Amino acid sequence: MKLIRFGEAGSEKPGVIIDDQYYDVSSLVSDYNEAFFAGDAIKKLSEDIKITNLPKVDQGVRLGSALARPSKIICVGLNYKDHAAETNAPIPTEPILFFKATSAIVGPNDDLIIPKNSKKTDWEVELAIVIGKKASYVSEENALEHIAGYVLHNDYSEREFQLERNGQWVKGKSCDTFAPIGPFIATPDEINDVHNLRLWLTVNGKTLQDGNTSNLIFNVPFMVSYISQFMTLLPGDVITTGTPAGVGLGQKPEPWYLKSGDVVELGIDGLGSSKQTVKSYTEA
Amino acid sequence: MKLIRFGEAGSEKPGVIIDDQYYDVSSLVSDYNEAFFAGDAIKKLSEDIKITNLPKVDQGVRLGSALARPSKIICVGLNYKDHAAETNAPIPTEPILFFKATSAIVGPNDDLIIPKNSKKTDWEVELAIVIGKKASYVSEENALEHIAGYVLHNDYSEREFQLERNGQWVKGKSCDTFAPIGPFIATPDEINDVHNLRLWLTVNGKTLQDGNTSNLIFNVPFMVSYISQFMTLLPGDVITTGTPAGVGLGQKPEPWYLKSGDVVELGIDGLGSSKQTVKSYTEA
Repeated sequence: MKLIRFGEAGSEKPGVIIDDQYYDVSSLVSDYNEAFFAGDAIKKLSEDIKITNLPKVDQGVRLGSALARPSKIICVGLNYKDHAAETNAPIPTEPILFFKATSAIVGPNDDLIIPKNSKKTDWEVELAIVIGKKASYVSEENALEHIAGYVLHNDYSEREFQLERNGQWVKGKSCDTFAPIGPFIATPDEINDVHNLRLWLTVNGKTLQDGNTSNLIFNVPFMVSYISQFMTLLPGDVITTGTPAGVGLGQKPEPWYLKSGDVVELGIDGLGSSKQTVKSYTEA
Repeated sequence: MKLIRFGEAGSEKPGVIIDDQYYDVSSLVSDYNEAFFAGDAIKKLSEDIKITNLPKVDQGVRLGSALARPSKIICVGLNYKDHAAETNAPIPTEPILFFKATSAIVGPNDDLIIPKNSKKTDWEVELAIVIGKKASYVSEENALEHIAGYVLHNDYSEREFQLERNGQWVKGKSCDTFAPIGPFIATPDEINDVHNLRLWLTVNGKTLQDGNTSNLIFNVPFMVSYISQFMTLLPGDVITTGTPAGVGLGQKPEPWYLKSGDVVELGIDGLGSSKQTVKSYTEA
């Protein structure tokens, strides 16, 4: 199943995509939130859909974040060797974890707003995991049972705020609009092999990131298990799994960053694509 | 006004303290959550209380966290010179920010559970700020308008997870039960001078921390303004403002940490006190 949320920001409704058509399922579920993911709601929804005539939704509708605000977004840093290399960082011996404020979440095609006083707003295409079942001290063997689905995420990062403002990284990861999530959550049955998905990103049509989840240093079950040793993952929580090489910070001969008017597009096999137009703070 | 939440974990009701007596206000407000703090609810509640006969609540009731789960807990690191010194860290030139998972929140007198594989579970008495009004790019001059109140917090920290497990600090700050918040939120009118409050902490009756908010490196309006340059603070969000000297990591001649059976008590002038009994993971 492919889950979307559509409508105006702040009043999105839940929907699904079936054969490229959007359908409104707000008569069946209230939202894709913690209560939804915690129960059997995904299974029940897939059964209910089969016996229901659902209202169609126009494809031109605005998409919101594919899930309601979760309790947390946990980010795994430097999880592709080529990206660690381009930022002159050592290969992590165990996952680096940091958080991103959930107030940064927006729809997949909403504008990216460069924060006030930012000179180094950068992009990061990432595979994100959506937790489906409370996870505390989960083994790698049982980790997949705790996953509701996967979704495309652009982990926008202000490098000066992140790296040059006396720490920690969260400072450069949490600005408003820095977490476009979507277009849709794909349930695991939609994805053939989560460890063999191409992920790519372009700026103004030029390909800058072109990686594959087969190159993840720490894989999906390991990450879920690992994080659950330090904190309880709640249904709906998002783990964003790191980015491959090709970010602005890693450009040669010199790093370069986003400016007003730029257009960022990104995608992952089986998880669709998203597109953000860059605006300055004063244009927002 | 002094706001409490009482009752069993997960089904707490909102209440108030008037002249040391607890009252149930669940007939007037549903919970102390984002919607409550965002509106005029505190003002309205104080007016409604004057004209209402409220049910009394037995003082023996369990207290929950003084607020419902916020969107985020933002922590300011090393914000007292004596604490920076005891941890051999330089005095920060600008605030260090990190997050604590909201899944760590518990009631002020709930047990502290030492996480699995932990050897270095440590204490930190802290003054926490509760945001009352959405704050983005707020000036220091206007910062106080965005504060709903103040509350006592113990920023429990696992030092090995925080400092020796390949970063970032969030790893050692987010374990379940690591954020006892309460006993109550005091609205600003209850506090004479937020920058002159004694804060203290004992373990098994021995005083280990005894500081004063007059020694904060970065003061309350500065912190609210500063954080709001990097992210939007939402109503109900918690900023925890750092701890004075006397944590386990800073003990001489050697650091020492909590063990099962220890009793931690802490308090701040005007914000009451809390008490946590330490249990091992297997006893929980």
